Amino acid sequence: MTGTIGLDIGATKTLGVLVDADGRVLEQVREATEPGRDGVVRTAALVVAHLGAATHGAPATSVGLGIPGLVDVERGMVKHAVNLGVDGDWVPLRAELEARLGVRVAVENDVNVATLGAVALSGIRDLVYVSIGTGLAAGLVLDGVLRRGATGAAGEIGHVPTDPNGAVCQCGQRGCLETIASGRALAEAWHPAGSPGGDVPPAQAVFAAAAAGDPRAVEVRDRFAAGVADAVRTLCLSVDPATIVLGGGVSHLGARLVEAVGDALRAQAASSPFLASLDLAARIRVVPDDQPVAAIGAALLGRP
Amino acid sequence: MTGTIGLDIGATKTLGVLVDADGRVLEQVREATEPGRDGVVRTAALVVAHLGAATHGAPATSVGLGIPGLVDVERGMVKHAVNLGVDGDWVPLRAELEARLGVRVAVENDVNVATLGAVALSGIRDLVYVSIGTGLAAGLVLDGVLRRGATGAAGEIGHVPTDPNGAVCQCGQRGCLETIASGRALAEAWHPAGSPGGDVPPAQAVFAAAAAGDPRAVEVRDRFAAGVADAVRTLCLSVDPATIVLGGGVSHLGARLVEAVGDALRAQAASSPFLASLDLAARIRVVPDDQPVAAIGAALLGRP
Repeated sequence: MTGTIGLDIGATKTLGVLVDADGRVLEQVREATEPGRDGVVRTAALVVAHLGAATHGAPATSVGLGIPGLVDVERGMVKHAVNLGVDGDWVPLRAELEARLGVRVAVENDVNVATLGAVALSGIRDLVYVSIGTGLAAGLVLDGVLRRGATGAAGEIGHVPTDPNGAVCQCGQRGCLETIASGRALAEAWHPAGSPGGDVPPAQAVFAAAAAGDPRAVEVRDRFAAGVADAVRTLCLSVDPATIVLGGGVSHLGARLVEAVGDALRAQAASSPFLASLDLAARIRVVPDDQPVAAIGAALLGRP
Repeated sequence: MTGTIGLDIGATKTLGVLVDADGRVLEQVREATEPGRDGVVRTAALVVAHLGAATHGAPATSVGLGIPGLVDVERGMVKHAVNLGVDGDWVPLRAELEARLGVRVAVENDVNVATLGAVALSGIRDLVYVSIGTGLAAGLVLDGVLRRGATGAAGEIGHVPTDPNGAVCQCGQRGCLETIASGRALAEAWHPAGSPGGDVPPAQAVFAAAAAGDPRAVEVRDRFAAGVADAVRTLCLSVDPATIVLGGGVSHLGARLVEAVGDALRAQAASSPFLASLDLAARIRVVPDDQPVAAIGAALLGRP
C-alpha cells in the first residue's frame, strides 16, 4: 500500500507518518533530529527510509514537511530555523530533499502544517489553530484555504502587544502576548530565572498545583490563561472563526487548558454584552493529544 | 443605459450611485436620510427613483445597500442600526425593499460595502480596509473574498483592548482601540466634554493645529495615530495583507493621516527588527477622497 509521507521536524525529534488517501495514519516513526542543515536533511531521509521499509518498499508519492522557521513555500526554502541550528542564508531544503529522496517534496512552517492537520482531523474547514509551545503563534484556515499572508506573517499573534507596561519581548516590543501566553512565559513565571525546576513540565506542574489550591500557582495559571484568552479574542475580532483549536506543547493539558481559558474568556465578557454575544468560550477546543497533528498536516501538503 | 444601483445609507444622508458593468459611476444622488424603519425604506426608494429618472427610466438590474448596523446577509435583515433609529427586532429590509422596488436587493454592513468599494477602486483583491469614523472597524477582502466570519464579527478590531489601564469603552471593556483610534475619541481628546467645539471637524482642527506647532494638538494627534497604528499592526499580525486602506470620515485628512500613522508605525518598529522587517508603514494608503467608495461597493453587491 502506498500513500504520502509527512514529517514534523522539531528541535529534538522528528516525527514521520505515512498517510493513506483517506487521511488515515498507516505508519508512524520517530527519530532524534540531527542539528544543522545537513543533519536535518539526513534525519528526514532516515525517517522516510524507515517509513518506506514499513510499507515494504512501496514508494510514497510525496513528502511534506513542517519546520519551525521562516519558510518560502514557493521556493521551498527555509531561514531562521534557529532551534534546529539552521540559520544565516536561505536553505533550499526542498531541492536538497528532492535530490536525495527522488520524490516531490513540499516545505511549510510548523504551525501551518499543524493547522492543516487540525482541519483534517476535525473535518472543520474554517478554523484558527493557536500553537502554545515555547512561543505563541496561530495558523488560519479560512473557508478551506490556508492563509499565509503577503509576507508569511499571518497568525503572528504572539507579537501583538496588549500592555504598554508589560515585559520586553524577545522581538523587541513591550507587552507582547507571547510574554504571557506561551510555554516559556509560563515556565518563567513559575520558576523565576535561577530557581530550580523539576522533572514535571512547568505547565503540568502549575496546573496541578493550582488545582490543589496553591495560591501562587492559581495566580500564575490565571494570568497565563488570561493571555491565551486575549489571543483568542484578538483572533476572533479579526477573522471570527467558529472554532479555535488550541495546540502546541502546552495543549497536553487538555480539558484543564480549555477550562482555564474558557473561564478567562467568560470573565472578559462579564463586563461587555457585545463580547458576551460572541460566546468565545464555546468556540475553544483542544487538539487531540494522541494524534500527530503536524505530521498529518505535512503529509497532506505535498499531495499532487 | 442600465446598470446596478448602490446605496450608502448613513445617519444623516443617503448616497446613491448607478454603476455600469465596468464599475464606472454613471449617476450620483444624495438625499437626507429619514430616520426609522419606514423612513429608511422611503429614503432608499426615493434615491432609487431619482437614479431611475436620471437614466431615463431604464430599470437597474439590482440594488445593493450598505447600512451601519448588524446585518444578516443571508436573510437580508438588519438589527442595531441605532444611528438610523432602527432598533429592537430584526428588520427584513431586503424583503421590504424588494416588494417596493421590484428588483433584486442585497443588504450588507456599511464597512463591508466600503471594503468592496476599495477593492473595486484599487484593483487590489487582497486588502484590509480600516474605517475610522465615529467608531473603528475593519473590513477584510482576502484573496478576492469578503471575510464576514462565523458571526459577522470579522474586522471588529475596535473592540480589541490594548491597555489594561485604558478608558472604559462603550462596549463595556477597558482600553479598546476604539477609545483611542476613532473620530469620537479624537474629538473628545481635543474638546473634553463640556468644552466648546467649532465649525471645523475635530480631526481637521487637531491636525491643522498640530502642523502649526500647538503642543497639545501634537500630543492628541500622535496618541490617535499610535492607536490607528496599533490597529494596523494587529490586523497585519493576524491576516498580513499587503495593503491597508484607511477610510471613514477621518480619512478626509488624506496624506496627513497616512503620514501620521506611518510615523507611528515606524516608531513602533524602531525597537523591533521583527516588526521592522514587515514594513507596515509602506502598506498604508488612504481611500480616494472624491469617490463614493461605500456606494460603489454596494452597487457591486447585488450583481447577479
